[in-house]
Amino acid sequence: MIASEFPVLAVLCGSAPPPDMAAIEEAAVVRYTDARGLPEALTGAQGLFVYDFLSTAVPGAWHAAGDLRWLHIASAGVDPVLFPGLVESDVVLTNSRGVFDDAIAEYVLCVVLAFAKDFARSLDLQRAGTWQHRETERVAGREVLVVGTGPIGRSIARLLRAAGLRVSGAGRRPRTGDPDFGTLHDSAQLTEHLPAFDYVVAVAPLTEQTKGMFDAAAFAAMKPSARFVNVGRGELVVTSDLVAALRGGEIAGAALDVFDTEPLPGDSPLWTMPDVLLSPHMSGDFAGWRNTLVEVFAANFRRWVAGEPLHNVVDKRLGYVPSESQGAAG
Amino acid sequence: MIASEFPVLAVLCGSAPPPDMAAIEEAAVVRYTDARGLPEALTGAQGLFVYDFLSTAVPGAWHAAGDLRWLHIASAGVDPVLFPGLVESDVVLTNSRGVFDDAIAEYVLCVVLAFAKDFARSLDLQRAGTWQHRETERVAGREVLVVGTGPIGRSIARLLRAAGLRVSGAGRRPRTGDPDFGTLHDSAQLTEHLPAFDYVVAVAPLTEQTKGMFDAAAFAAMKPSARFVNVGRGELVVTSDLVAALRGGEIAGAALDVFDTEPLPGDSPLWTMPDVLLSPHMSGDFAGWRNTLVEVFAANFRRWVAGEPLHNVVDKRLGYVPSESQGAAG
Repeated sequence: MIASEFPVLAVLCGSAPPPDMAAIEEAAVVRYTDARGLPEALTGAQGLFVYDFLSTAVPGAWHAAGDLRWLHIASAGVDPVLFPGLVESDVVLTNSRGVFDDAIAEYVLCVVLAFAKDFARSLDLQRAGTWQHRETERVAGREVLVVGTGPIGRSIARLLRAAGLRVSGAGRRPRTGDPDFGTLHDSAQLTEHLPAFDYVVAVAPLTEQTKGMFDAAAFAAMKPSARFVNVGRGELVVTSDLVAALRGGEIAGAALDVFDTEPLPGDSPLWTMPDVLLSPHMSGDFAGWRNTLVEVFAANFRRWVAGEPLHNVVDKRLGYVPSESQGAAG
Repeated sequence: MIASEFPVLAVLCGSAPPPDMAAIEEAAVVRYTDARGLPEALTGAQGLFVYDFLSTAVPGAWHAAGDLRWLHIASAGVDPVLFPGLVESDVVLTNSRGVFDDAIAEYVLCVVLAFAKDFARSLDLQRAGTWQHRETERVAGREVLVVGTGPIGRSIARLLRAAGLRVSGAGRRPRTGDPDFGTLHDSAQLTEHLPAFDYVVAVAPLTEQTKGMFDAAAFAAMKPSARFVNVGRGELVVTSDLVAALRGGEIAGAALDVFDTEPLPGDSPLWTMPDVLLSPHMSGDFAGWRNTLVEVFAANFRRWVAGEPLHNVVDKRLGYVPSESQGAAG
């Protein structure tokens, strides 16, 4: 095989290229680029690996993507690359479904326990050198609603149930007897169901249907003692409504790993609000995650070169991988 | 029945008497007292309810306990009342085994997750208004040693295993096939086993055998990446050795809910050490715990008045309730 027979693969990665690319470089002409160089790198490329998965550079370089057949993104959410030009094209879109599931589930259990055990207050008191006994909450038996029924939501449901919480889900297809959620409520009727839950976890994909679904009406429907956890996308939430709900005591707390603007601007009131726990979009990023992301890409790359069906093919109209087509990579 | 036929019950409670005592007051002459009044309250009393379970006043009032037949303590650990005068007497000692188990297990899972997810650092960064992405650890598959095989240790083992960790135990009777721990190592050979574990949880009762068991040799045997969790008694640990091990990098962190002096003195270096999480002896104290403690006492009180065998009888030579005699109350 001579070099010209190799596929051309553009890799959008900014200043930090992905690790473990040697095997791929042996089977493709690999062009590493940042956002500025993307049009040039895309010209004549058949594949695009969006390793810098929060970049919004793809739409602006789409004019150079005439030869593109496959786009793989190193994340579960595909909203940064899902624009009309891609949706209407024949380019196959695959994601990194499965990489983050269990790490995010552990993060969610961590913040649920932190709320129940008043952990942030313990740390603040420790920093102040103050010994102050308090009574805390149990988590066993508390009711959790996981909004989003993809593999991350399912992993959250399984782990929280294992830890003694009672878990239900909310999604597009309500039903009972789901193996992970038991009851799945209709996410289109969310406010009807919210009053029953002590914890509400947002992990839905960001689509036209889910954008802003957690608004004033949703927070008003929650228990005053409820805590809201967002490990999905910041844009699932109307942030000003969340701030108002926290200030007004309509809910008791929020743990947020994602924000509508990232990094979270320094003047956001969320930084200093009591009962708000912030983390910088890292809930799924366990040590070794970058290697795992490249492994997932490499497995699909081998299939692509061999002409086999790809794993984790996104339904570009839905905006996520439908569960019936999740393939062997799950 | 006239009042003189009622048993006399002394209740050591300081300024805050226990709740829910009405039913007991209908069947006993109840004398509420603080430490100073204890000798007078004990004079002629057949029962003593140590509700102020950290009080060390009992030995000093023992000269007045000539009529005492039963002492119940509102805690799992009996070390505050276990002195030679009681051990050598015929007074039956019962404890509140079972009340705290699951709440303490949730606390332990909380601090394990907090270490893995770098939660304290997230909160410090939030307080500083700093967005700083980090990679964090998984807890699934990590190895935990629970030192102490009573009901609290068993609840910890079950919950941590449910959350995906691998759990072993250490106790006086090593064996395999334990339903909660799988393998139980010999706590007399602790340093041989410690190198294998990512988390070491101390929950043994405080006895002559366990006092100071976590010393320089024990910490030196742990992994440099290990975290130590103490929800047992502060005196299980040689605190100066723990401080030195943390400073020397022999272990990576400690979460401490109990201390050899409580409240923890303001000049303790533990307050400000990095990777140390402190809480003020509250891991088991869920909302409603005081009512539950009185329920446990009241159930034993009814048995006592009826002449039935008591639950949770402590083996005063061992210093805890042996598992083979834990009775129906578990």
